Amino acid sequence: MTHDPINAFDRPDGPDLPDVDALHDPALAARVQHAIDRKTKPQGALGQLEALALQLALIQGRDLPRLEQPQMLVFAADHGLAARGVSAYPADVTAQMVLNFLHGGAAVSVLARQHGLALTVVDAGVRHDFEPHPSLRRCKVARGTADASQAHAMSPSQCAQAIAVGREVVASLPGNAVLLGEMGIGNSSAAAMLVARLTDSPIEACTGRGTGLDDAALARKTAVLAEVLARHADAVEPLAALAAFGGLEIAALVGAVLQAAAQRRVIVVDGYIVSAAVLVASRLQPAVLQRCVFAHRSQEHGHTRLLDHCGVRPLIDLDLRLGEGSGAALAWPLLESACRILAEMASFESAGVSDRA
Amino acid sequence: MTHDPINAFDRPDGPDLPDVDALHDPALAARVQHAIDRKTKPQGALGQLEALALQLALIQGRDLPRLEQPQMLVFAADHGLAARGVSAYPADVTAQMVLNFLHGGAAVSVLARQHGLALTVVDAGVRHDFEPHPSLRRCKVARGTADASQAHAMSPSQCAQAIAVGREVVASLPGNAVLLGEMGIGNSSAAAMLVARLTDSPIEACTGRGTGLDDAALARKTAVLAEVLARHADAVEPLAALAAFGGLEIAALVGAVLQAAAQRRVIVVDGYIVSAAVLVASRLQPAVLQRCVFAHRSQEHGHTRLLDHCGVRPLIDLDLRLGEGSGAALAWPLLESACRILAEMASFESAGVSDRA
Repeated sequence: MTHDPINAFDRPDGPDLPDVDALHDPALAARVQHAIDRKTKPQGALGQLEALALQLALIQGRDLPRLEQPQMLVFAADHGLAARGVSAYPADVTAQMVLNFLHGGAAVSVLARQHGLALTVVDAGVRHDFEPHPSLRRCKVARGTADASQAHAMSPSQCAQAIAVGREVVASLPGNAVLLGEMGIGNSSAAAMLVARLTDSPIEACTGRGTGLDDAALARKTAVLAEVLARHADAVEPLAALAAFGGLEIAALVGAVLQAAAQRRVIVVDGYIVSAAVLVASRLQPAVLQRCVFAHRSQEHGHTRLLDHCGVRPLIDLDLRLGEGSGAALAWPLLESACRILAEMASFESAGVSDRA
Repeated sequence: MTHDPINAFDRPDGPDLPDVDALHDPALAARVQHAIDRKTKPQGALGQLEALALQLALIQGRDLPRLEQPQMLVFAADHGLAARGVSAYPADVTAQMVLNFLHGGAAVSVLARQHGLALTVVDAGVRHDFEPHPSLRRCKVARGTADASQAHAMSPSQCAQAIAVGREVVASLPGNAVLLGEMGIGNSSAAAMLVARLTDSPIEACTGRGTGLDDAALARKTAVLAEVLARHADAVEPLAALAAFGGLEIAALVGAVLQAAAQRRVIVVDGYIVSAAVLVASRLQPAVLQRCVFAHRSQEHGHTRLLDHCGVRPLIDLDLRLGEGSGAALAWPLLESACRILAEMASFESAGVSDRA
C-alpha cells in the first residue's frame, strides 16, 4: 500500500465526502415548539426532553418524528501507539472484545438487546482475522495503524478508505437512526490528540485514564502524546490530524457521521472517542452537529471540554468510561420518550385541563 | 371528623408505622461487587450503573436482582394553601390532571406505557368526586387539606389515615418495585416547608418556581411559606410537620415509602415532592433510604439541597420540573439495565478476554 505524503488530501484522490446541508425550517420549528408548549404540563417542565423532541423533529423534517430500525454500530481497530504503553490493557483485547460483542456478552451487546437495537460490529482495522459472522462487517483497511510516534498513523489513502468504510456501512443499513460506538485499545490517546490539536487545547486537558491508568501511567501517556503531537506539528487540518494520530475506527466513525448526517439520520454519539470523531466531521461539515444527540458525559478527562467546545449538553451523566456505545444505548429510551411525548401527550385543549391564569 | 391537637401523635392512636430493618449482608455485597468487577469492562467503567446494580442486589437480597411487575403510583390531593396564590395554576387542575392520567394523555401516562409500568392513580384527597375507573383508587381522606396559613393542614387523624392509604395501596399491589409520583396544585409549597423544617434550612433555599412562577410570584410564595412556618413553629417532629404543612398525597407517599421499604421493594423516587416524602419517612425509619433509587435531579430550587442532605446522587439530570412520576419513569430503563448487566454480561473468564497487565 502506498503511503502518500500527508498533503495528499489536497489532491483529487482525497476522501469522497458528502455535503451536509444546514437544517433550516423556521415554520416547522415554530409549529413543533407550539405543540410542545400546549402539552398538558407547565411550559418547559420536561426540560431537556423538550429540546430533544424539537431536534428530532427538525432532523426528520416532520412534526411527529419517529425512530425506525435503530442501528448500533461499533467500529473497531487497533493502534500502533498501543506499543508505547498508553493503555492499561494489552492490544489483544480489541479483537477479544469484538468477539465478545458478537457473542452477546459485552455491555453494549446486553444494552442493545434490551432496547431492540440492531448491533453491527465493523472491523475497520483490527490486528486479527475474524471468521465471518452475520453481525460483523469485515472491512479491514490495515492491521492496525502505524505507531504515531514513529510515522503517520495512517496514510492519506488509508484514512480515505476508512472514511469510505464508515460511509458505506451506514448507507447499507436500514432505519433512520444510528448509535455510534467504538473499540480499540489505545484509542483514547488518538482522541486526546485530535481534540488537543483541533481545539487548540493543552494535551494535559485532553488526556484521561482511558481504561484505568494510575497517576504514573497517566503521566507517561501524556508525555508520549505530547511527543507525538510535536512530531506531527504540521498536521493541523482535520483530515491531516486524523491521519497523523489515527485511528482507523475513528476515521470510519467520521465517515459514518458524515453519511448519517447527509441522510438526515439521527446520530446518537457515545463517549469521548466518538465525540472526537464528531469533532473531526464537524470541521469538514459543520451541520453534522445538528443531527447529533450527545448521549452522555464521559468520565474520561477532556470530554467535558470537548462537549463545551461543541456547545452541547449530553443527556446523561453516570460517570461512564467504557465506550463501545454503551452510553449511547443507555440514553436511547430518552429519544423514544421525546418522540412519544410529541405523539401521545394530550394538549390542554384536548384534555380539558385549565391553563395557568 | 375530630381535629385532634397536634401532639396526638404521642398518643396510642397515632399512625401505624412498619419497622424497616437496615439491610446488612456484607457477604452478598462482596460477592456482587466481585461479579461486577469481573465483567468484561475496566473496573468501575460503568460508573453509577454499577452502584445501582449493587444496591438492587442488596435490596432484594440476591446476587441477581430481577424487577417484576413495576408499579407506577401517582398520589393526588389538593392543598388549602393554594387559595393563597402559591401556584401558577388554579386548584381545579389537580382533578383535571387525575383524569388526564387515567385517560392516558399525561406525560406519566405516556412514559408508563412506553416502559410497561402499571399505572395506578390514588385520590388521597382531591377536591372532586371521581367516577370509578380501573386505574383509580378512591381513598379520599378529605376534600383537600385545610389552609396551612390558618390551621394545621391535616389533623393527626387525617395524617394517619393518609399514611394508611399509602401503605394499603402498596400492600395491595403485586411486584417488587414501585415508582412514586404525585399531583397536587400547591404541593411544592408543602414540600418546601417540610424540607425547610426537617433540614433546618432557610425557606428561601427550599422554595422554587413550582409550575412556573415569575420572580414576583416566587417572592410572594416565599413570604407566605415563611408566615406558615412561623405559625407552626412548634411542628418540629416529622409527623407534626407533615400534619401542619400537608399534604394528604405527601402523607400517603410517606406511607407508601414505609410500606414498600418494609417489604423490600425497590422504590424509585421522582422529584422534589416525592423526595420530601422520603425525607419524612427516613426520619421515622432511616433504613428506607437504602431502598430508594433517586431518579432525577429536579430543576425545582431546593431539590439539590435535599438530595445532598440525604447523601444521594440521582440518575438523571434533565432539568425536569413536572412531577407526576415522569422523572421516575424516564429513569426506569436504567434500573433494568443494571439488572441485565449483572445477569447477562460475560466475565473476563467466560469470554476469554485478557485482563489488564
